Amino acid sequence: MKPRVDYTLYLCTDRELMSEDTLEKSVELAIQGGVTVVQLREKDCSGREFLQVAREVKQITDAYEIPLIINDRIDIAMAVDADGVHLGQSDIPAHTARELLGPDKIIGVSAYNKELAVEAQKEGADYLGVGDIFGTSTKAGTHHVEIDTLSRICQAVKIPVVAIGGINLSNVTKLAGTGIQGTAVISAIIASKNITEAATKMLSLLKNEVIVNSPKA
Amino acid sequence: MKPRVDYTLYLCTDRELMSEDTLEKSVELAIQGGVTVVQLREKDCSGREFLQVAREVKQITDAYEIPLIINDRIDIAMAVDADGVHLGQSDIPAHTARELLGPDKIIGVSAYNKELAVEAQKEGADYLGVGDIFGTSTKAGTHHVEIDTLSRICQAVKIPVVAIGGINLSNVTKLAGTGIQGTAVISAIIASKNITEAATKMLSLLKNEVIVNSPKA
Repeated sequence: MKPRVDYTLYLCTDRELMSEDTLEKSVELAIQGGVTVVQLREKDCSGREFLQVAREVKQITDAYEIPLIINDRIDIAMAVDADGVHLGQSDIPAHTARELLGPDKIIGVSAYNKELAVEAQKEGADYLGVGDIFGTSTKAGTHHVEIDTLSRICQAVKIPVVAIGGINLSNVTKLAGTGIQGTAVISAIIASKNITEAATKMLSLLKNEVIVNSPKA
Repeated sequence: MKPRVDYTLYLCTDRELMSEDTLEKSVELAIQGGVTVVQLREKDCSGREFLQVAREVKQITDAYEIPLIINDRIDIAMAVDADGVHLGQSDIPAHTARELLGPDKIIGVSAYNKELAVEAQKEGADYLGVGDIFGTSTKAGTHHVEIDTLSRICQAVKIPVVAIGGINLSNVTKLAGTGIQGTAVISAIIASKNITEAATKMLSLLKNEVIVNSPKA
């Protein structure tokens, strides 16, 4: 059965930005602070290294019963029995991913406008990553998404929407009322000197001031 | 059941080197000249583009009943139902690939010394790609392999060995007596003005002067 995912505080990893020595330690500290789902995103490493890191992070996420999503590489997600994959617009399409992964895995898709969002839902995506909201330097080739557009996407689809891109403690409350189910955070947690505290503060803001909608089915 | 593969003339693709307008056309002309197996190698393109190209090339290889091997991306090999994958030393290990692909798919592994060759055989590889034999600029991070080393690898393993790296009509006969089951060729075919003729000449040299051993089981 497909796991129920709480998308409220969605951690994306980035080894170049992290303040801790190891990715596993960073992820563990973030989970202790309240991260609800983890996406492993490793763009500039070999398949073998990605697999190794995924196995190590999976031990942490399993221990805390937090879902682990693998970016792009469906084969690595299958090899480590991750909970799902996250696919960009230049990755393997969601319907092909579904054929490979079966009905019980989570498939997330990046969308930066309403048309792509509706299309991804139609192709069987379980959630959407929508951004870049506040401008980020962590990913090349991103598209800026206005908060109005984010709201319109949330209204247009039935699946949960996770906002992504430069979201931090100072700007996250601007997303209140958009209809998002969560925010994806990279540097605001991973690059923090106190990862656990950063995650706790972000989760508190999200729960108390941003995520006012009841979760979508 | 695992397909029997004739490794004699093993074409690796490289879109940057090809003389024809499309990869599918290049592959078709090469097959008409006698290529016995095709590996699709696309290092610098997105997963979505790789998948699309793989689907198009699969139509050609299927029409001519030639095995199609996908480089690195096991998920793409699964999505197009390719005959197998080829894995470098920095890709997902062969034993993990076998778990994902099952017993009926071909797994090839790159090895540049005897230890790696024996290890790959132990991990369940069906054949080895051994090189770089004659120095090639088409792949970064390659290791030079002496012809003596190539011979020792052929003696050390039971699985077929395919020599790779800068092999062309002028140097291929130097591989006679090494014990190889085939040669992988990129630019000597793909970059030729007459792809079919280049493949025919190479196959003739291989059959008449190089591959003197009876095929390994």
